[in-house]
Amino acid sequence: MSVKDVPSLSDLLEEALEVKQNPFAWKSLGKNKSICLLFLNPSLRTRLSSQRAAQNLGLDSVVLDVNSGGWKLEFADGVVMNGDSAEHIKEAAAVIGAYFDMVAIRAFASLKNREEDYSEKILSAFIKYCGVPVINMESSTGHPLQAFADLITITENKIVEKPKVVLTWAPHPNALPQAVANSFAEWMLKADVELAITHPEGYELSSEFSGGLAPEFDQRKAFENADFIYAKNWSSYSEYGKVLSIDSDWMVTSEKMKLTNNAKFMHCLPVRRNQIVEDEVIDSANSIVIEEAANRIVSMQTVLKMILEDMG
Amino acid sequence: MSVKDVPSLSDLLEEALEVKQNPFAWKSLGKNKSICLLFLNPSLRTRLSSQRAAQNLGLDSVVLDVNSGGWKLEFADGVVMNGDSAEHIKEAAAVIGAYFDMVAIRAFASLKNREEDYSEKILSAFIKYCGVPVINMESSTGHPLQAFADLITITENKIVEKPKVVLTWAPHPNALPQAVANSFAEWMLKADVELAITHPEGYELSSEFSGGLAPEFDQRKAFENADFIYAKNWSSYSEYGKVLSIDSDWMVTSEKMKLTNNAKFMHCLPVRRNQIVEDEVIDSANSIVIEEAANRIVSMQTVLKMILEDMG
Amino acid sequence: MSVKDVPSLSDLLEEALEVKQNPFAWKSLGKNKSICLLFLNPSLRTRLSSQRAAQNLGLDSVVLDVNSGGWKLEFADGVVMNGDSAEHIKEAAAVIGAYFDMVAIRAFASLKNREEDYSEKILSAFIKYCGVPVINMESSTGHPLQAFADLITITENKIVEKPKVVLTWAPHPNALPQAVANSFAEWMLKADVELAITHPEGYELSSEFSGGLAPEFDQRKAFENADFIYAKNWSSYSEYGKVLSIDSDWMVTSEKMKLTNNAKFMHCLPVRRNQIVEDEVIDSANSIVIEEAANRIVSMQTVLKMILEDMG
Repeated sequence: MSVKDVPSLSDLLEEALEVKQNPFAWKSLGKNKSICLLFLNPSLRTRLSSQRAAQNLGLDSVVLDVNSGGWKLEFADGVVMNGDSAEHIKEAAAVIGAYFDMVAIRAFASLKNREEDYSEKILSAFIKYCGVPVINMESSTGHPLQAFADLITITENKIVEKPKVVLTWAPHPNALPQAVANSFAEWMLKADVELAITHPEGYELSSEFSGGLAPEFDQRKAFENADFIYAKNWSSYSEYGKVLSIDSDWMVTSEKMKLTNNAKFMHCLPVRRNQIVEDEVIDSANSIVIEEAANRIVSMQTVLKMILEDMG
Repeated sequence: MSVKDVPSLSDLLEEALEVKQNPFAWKSLGKNKSICLLFLNPSLRTRLSSQRAAQNLGLDSVVLDVNSGGWKLEFADGVVMNGDSAEHIKEAAAVIGAYFDMVAIRAFASLKNREEDYSEKILSAFIKYCGVPVINMESSTGHPLQAFADLITITENKIVEKPKVVLTWAPHPNALPQAVANSFAEWMLKADVELAITHPEGYELSSEFSGGLAPEFDQRKAFENADFIYAKNWSSYSEYGKVLSIDSDWMVTSEKMKLTNNAKFMHCLPVRRNQIVEDEVIDSANSIVIEEAANRIVSMQTVLKMILEDMG
Repeated sequence: MSVKDVPSLSDLLEEALEVKQNPFAWKSLGKNKSICLLFLNPSLRTRLSSQRAAQNLGLDSVVLDVNSGGWKLEFADGVVMNGDSAEHIKEAAAVIGAYFDMVAIRAFASLKNREEDYSEKILSAFIKYCGVPVINMESSTGHPLQAFADLITITENKIVEKPKVVLTWAPHPNALPQAVANSFAEWMLKADVELAITHPEGYELSSEFSGGLAPEFDQRKAFENADFIYAKNWSSYSEYGKVLSIDSDWMVTSEKMKLTNNAKFMHCLPVRRNQIVEDEVIDSANSIVIEEAANRIVSMQTVLKMILEDMG
């Protein structure tokens, strides 16, 4: 669900690197087991990497898309269900839990109601009612499997022992969730790296995730001596869900990359070229975005493997 | 297709309980076989339980959703196909039959044309043209795999040898098919139970399924001494597809449940809470709706197993 | 990608007939391998036959539908991506290539821009950026797996050594791509058959595919002594994407079939009855359309098998 579920980050990383080296070594673990991959929002990387990760473990998977009309869930207690919602989360989650050995869920933030989003209404309800292990494939406030893949990628690419990692906001035409930035900050704060966060004023992340780390509003200053530049757009947390800036001065450019310690460039993808990052940067040898995306199989497979091992 | 295909209900039940106890015991049966799961209508339980049932038997499955634009089928003979329909059922069914060892189909009633719905136009056409075993995953008039799961659940939960089972209509804002109620009545009439059906006047089921059993219009009277209360909404058969009542007095309440013989509460799900049934009832220890849903894997797997065994 | 990738058509055909006879003989080939089946357009036969072909080889497959909103790809270089497109083909293709051992793609012609369609923009971009073998499941200009299945079917059904095969245009209310006709012409020109092409004036195929073979504008004359009649509609190549005729005189009728050498009737399906072909023809014993569709598993499986064998 979150980095909080990880007793030892270094043990987890070691596990991940083993999984990456021998992806098919635990193919009997998934025998006679099945996972439901539940998507309330569209997905490319998560959808594909999750299925591949399950296959690598001999684990059957069933994908269910629930965004497409017809199946609106009710979350409130005591409601007279005579409106749009055809099913209560209590039954929906319990049935899926009865059919599968585990459930992975993607449910984005609405960006309309901060309290509701940050209470993780949907994910919490599944955890409460489904009775089997639940895996977060990006929720309202977090995307732990992305952050875990990011950490694997940083570990594989670092040259210095404790690299400087910069999470930089970059402009985007649409309002995006804070989930990726939140989890990245949260994981990096626990990892053996020096984290800096840079963004325009008004884009401060919830201190629950940023640990109260003071942001650097001067992007160029933040880039100095960086070993990794991690670009991402997110909408405002304080003025919830608002786009406060589309200032193209915040784009990651090759000129700014020169300020770094020959830093690697990272992004969770999909990325808008020449908006978030210049072609010259993402097409350079220092760009490790594809390797980073490839590690999404590793992070998912490591988590699935550990859950399966727990099941005995 | 229907309970009519079952030579001995007690043998079938025995088979089901064996399958439930040893879900993976026949995993080699499905080797090199594949089933096409064809959905012309949305589905949660049927979709997931069918895939899981196939997995348990080592049977490959392929899901095809055909409700989403583009693929409108023609059923009439001799028509000049210069309109919306891009393919005739003759070819569509034959090709699917050529690709798979069996086909399972979900195709709801239109609720517009009773004669067409009750002729099972779509299902009959598939049976006629596809040349491989066809499994009904809810058709215009029946939902046998649901009724079979219901019977398994009743068998597992009954305390008296011949329990009183009450099928009760309950209010719903939309017009729903009669399929679930039809099959439930049909199966219970063949099973070792005492069936009672209660609903407002005008909601009589087709005698083809109710066996001409006289309904009890007084719901409270029907509930007396009941061992199982099976709630379900359906639209009118006589005034075809019409919603004649949304009278909330027909909701299943805890007060009414007191009239019963400490009855178990059942519903095929999804269920609208506080519309079909009070929270207090469905959340009580006597509610067996999740167990009932879980048995959907068992009913499907039992049918798949028998078909695979027939194939030798 | 095309018949140009085939060193020896007779070797390929021999391989296909072996695969057909022993579909499960190479089930260990796909072990620990996975293919992504990417659909930018709807599909019935291709979707189902590809999944079945993969299953037969023990190859895992993951289907991804990318036509449904949200995921618009950018293909141009150097563009500022501040519009609809959320991801550039460079990243999308590279990530899919990182997740899977091979990728199969369906991407129809737009029929708006001939130069763009005939440059195979989408398919070429995937080949360029994904880094793993790419399989054409019908592109802007070709449908090689259909043509291969057609050739298998002709080989199995021919009575004379070098049969006369007639590709005949037939009327359709909508504008359809030239892909099927293109590939059929291209493959037949390399095969041991005598090809004739008949269509109304203005429907000439690109000479890249027709090899400059002069069309016969008199359909009846073309049908004389034919051993196989292959019907298909396509829109104009010269007046790109236009429907120049819906003349029902071009329909394949039983009366015209009498002009042939007792020819077999073929169509790639879906087919509009009594528009493309009369019921009497497609329902006759000489119709081999279902057998032809069934061979789609064989053509796909043969190609997958050869790619897997190349991977060693």
